[in-house]
Parts: sequence; C-alpha cells; structure tokens
Amino acid sequence: MALTTIGFDADDTLWHNERFFALTQERFTNLMRAHAGSDHLAERLLAAERRNVGHYGFGVKGFTLSMIETAIEVSEGRVPGSVIAEIMEAGREMLSHPIELLPEARATVQALSGDFRIMLVTKGDLLDQERKLAQSGLGDLFDAVEIVSDKAPEVYARIFARHGTGADEGLMVGNSLKSDVIPMIAAGGWGVHVPHDLTWALEHADAPEDNPRFRRLPDLSGLTALIAEIR
Amino acid sequence: MALTTIGFDADDTLWHNERFFALTQERFTNLMRAHAGSDHLAERLLAAERRNVGHYGFGVKGFTLSMIETAIEVSEGRVPGSVIAEIMEAGREMLSHPIELLPEARATVQALSGDFRIMLVTKGDLLDQERKLAQSGLGDLFDAVEIVSDKAPEVYARIFARHGTGADEGLMVGNSLKSDVIPMIAAGGWGVHVPHDLTWALEHADAPEDNPRFRRLPDLSGLTALIAEIR
Repeated sequence: MALTTIGFDADDTLWHNERFFALTQERFTNLMRAHAGSDHLAERLLAAERRNVGHYGFGVKGFTLSMIETAIEVSEGRVPGSVIAEIMEAGREMLSHPIELLPEARATVQALSGDFRIMLVTKGDLLDQERKLAQSGLGDLFDAVEIVSDKAPEVYARIFARHGTGADEGLMVGNSLKSDVIPMIAAGGWGVHVPHDLTWALEHADAPEDNPRFRRLPDLSGLTALIAEIR
Repeated sequence: MALTTIGFDADDTLWHNERFFALTQERFTNLMRAHAGSDHLAERLLAAERRNVGHYGFGVKGFTLSMIETAIEVSEGRVPGSVIAEIMEAGREMLSHPIELLPEARATVQALSGDFRIMLVTKGDLLDQERKLAQSGLGDLFDAVEIVSDKAPEVYARIFARHGTGADEGLMVGNSLKSDVIPMIAAGGWGVHVPHDLTWALEHADAPEDNPRFRRLPDLSGLTALIAEIR
C-alpha cells in the first residue's frame, strides 16, 4: 500500500496547548467569583465559544473575546473594567506561553522525515501558530506547514494533493477525533488518534472504530512501528 | 525581461475594507462620548493597535481587543459592560460586512490570468480573509492564495518561489507601500502602488521613488498596459 505523506496536528499532539486554556479558564473563574455566581460559568463560556467560532475561528483571540462576552453576560453588565483588563492580560499571556514538546514528538517526526513527506497541519490564529512552531524548534523537520481555518475533508484533500500524492496516500496524526482523524478518513486517508488527557469539548466526537483506516495509539512512541505495519 | 507571476493584495486593492474600520471607529467614538473625553481617542486607539500588533497580528479580532483596551484605559476602568458589549458587536459586524469590489478589479485580474500566474497575498485573520475572498467571487481566478501573518521580504521570496519562478520574476500590486510595495522590491521583484483614499496609519511609508522596479498607478485600469510595457 502506498503511503507517502504524514500530517501531524500541532497543539496537544506535538506540544502542550490545552493546559494553557485550562489555566486561563481557572484564572477567569477566580476573577469572576466576586462578580457573578460561578455556577454554570464554564458552560456559559463554552456556549459563547460555540456561538462565536463561526465568526472568530479558532484560537486565543476568539477565546479572549468569548471570555469578555461571558463576563459581561453573567454579571449582567456589572463586571468592572479592571476585571475585563485582567481577562485581556490573561489572553495576551497565552500568546507568549512557552512551548513544551510532548514525549517522543521530536524523535518521531525525525524518524519519519527520511522516508515520508512530513507536513504540519494546524488551525488557530495565524501569528500564534507560527510563533509556537518557531519556538518548538521542529520547523526544519517539516516539508510543508499548513495553518488552516478549519479541518474539513476538502481541506485535507487539497493540502495532501498540494504537498503529497493525495489524501489516499496520506496519514494524519492528532489528538482530535473531530478535526484530525474523522475528516482525514473521510478524505480517503488514514487517521491515527493519539489522545491527550486535555481535549477541548468542541473537539469531542465518536471514534470511527470499525473503519479500516482508523488507528489509535496511547502516545507517539508507537507511530513509526504502526506506519511500517500499514505501509 | 521575464515576468511570470503577479501578486495582488486584497483589502483596499481589490475590494473596500478600510472603510469598515473607519465606520467602526466612528461608532466607537460615539459610544465612548459619554464615558471619556473624545480628545485623543483616535491616537490612543492607534497606540493600542501599534502596541498589540506583535501579539495579535493583523485583523478584526485584534482591532476589537484594542478598542476594548482603549475604552477601559480612557475611561479609567469606568466604561460600562453594556458599552463593551456594543464594541464587541461592532467588531462582529465587521466580520460579516459585504464585499464591494473596486472598479476594474475583476476585469484586471481576468485579463492577466491568461498570461501570468496570479496570486492573492493578504494578511489578517485567516477565517475572515477566506470569507471575503469567497464573497468576492474572484476565488477561481487565482492560481494560489496566501494568507500570511506579515508581508516581509522573506515572505515574498518564499511564496513567489513556491507559486511562481521567484520574486525577481514577480510583481506585487497593492495600496500599501509598507506591506505590498517596499518589501516586494526588497525581495527583488516589482512593486506597483495603487493608492486607496483610506489607508491605515500603520501602513504608511515613504515611496521608493527612484527605484527602477517601483511604479505607481491611480487605479487598476492601467495595470495591464503597465505590465505589457515592463515585461
């Protein structure tokens, strides 16, 4: 079976990311404690994120705007300007958080880069995703980097055609069933799910357990062996 | 002289854009009238945008966050939540403003698309730039679309190599001297300035009048003739 091109998701597949969202959300909850019942605060924020993702797309700037919106909403407009300023500061700090690679990320990408075209496929704010890639030190290992606004089957079809030999000879690795695995399989490729203990609620989906092109690994260390086996 | 690839800036080169920023800023000024002296409001907002562009990059989401920051700053934290909510609503409306093509935009791109590789090069929020391109109806005319976080000489060198035959055989058309013209010339290509009556203060720069690869046109209607002449 021909397999020429491997795509890696970035956030929470190669490096930690969601933990910074979780920490910021905790900070948000603490900031709001004095100004609104904290009941349902997480649900209200998630509802705002869900409502706004079609306008803002994915990433920290949209998350910051959704926190501000939620703060105003749950406090019925009474949240002080100083708290909003702190929410914005928390958002800006997310845009400079340090990058910590996940175990085996560098070794795995390196091991595969001799035999395959290797692509990074990520969504979020353009500048922020570029910054994280630069800080990761992995930039030179990729033959192509695609920062996309959404991870839909037609997006995978297009970018695996552009940088590889089509999605049917491609494989995508990531922690999100919804974004990395299911649409890649729908585009005709392989989808390998490597779960991360923190995954954003909007990325949850049911695993396509019976699909012959679906695989799951506990971490990246088994990836080269899995690829050798299905190749 | 070999010329193979033409890059077009999008906002205020092919379609109106800055006018929506100007209208939103007017709305912002009106909203703030009751909560802060409007003296220097525009300067304070511009200072916030300048301070934040390295964190947020270009686009509507960062502009919205800069408006919120300025509202808190100039009101010394006293701006009501309801006003911040209105600022956010104004930002969201910018993300769905209708696209109005500039005169000759379609005809010019169409006329050139037979003889050259045609590329769209734009910066801003990924999803928003994609939306505007889709609504413009021009999408099919481009051989490539590059949404970039910044328009630096090395970016032009990379994308004109990727989609064309290098920056020295490329030409970039746009309303921003700072982003479209000067860095393209620095990369070895041609830069054609087509001014727009509204251009963001952060895009101002001095024209490289004496550079042999610099040209200026009053509007897009002269572009095909200019290209025929320098080719």
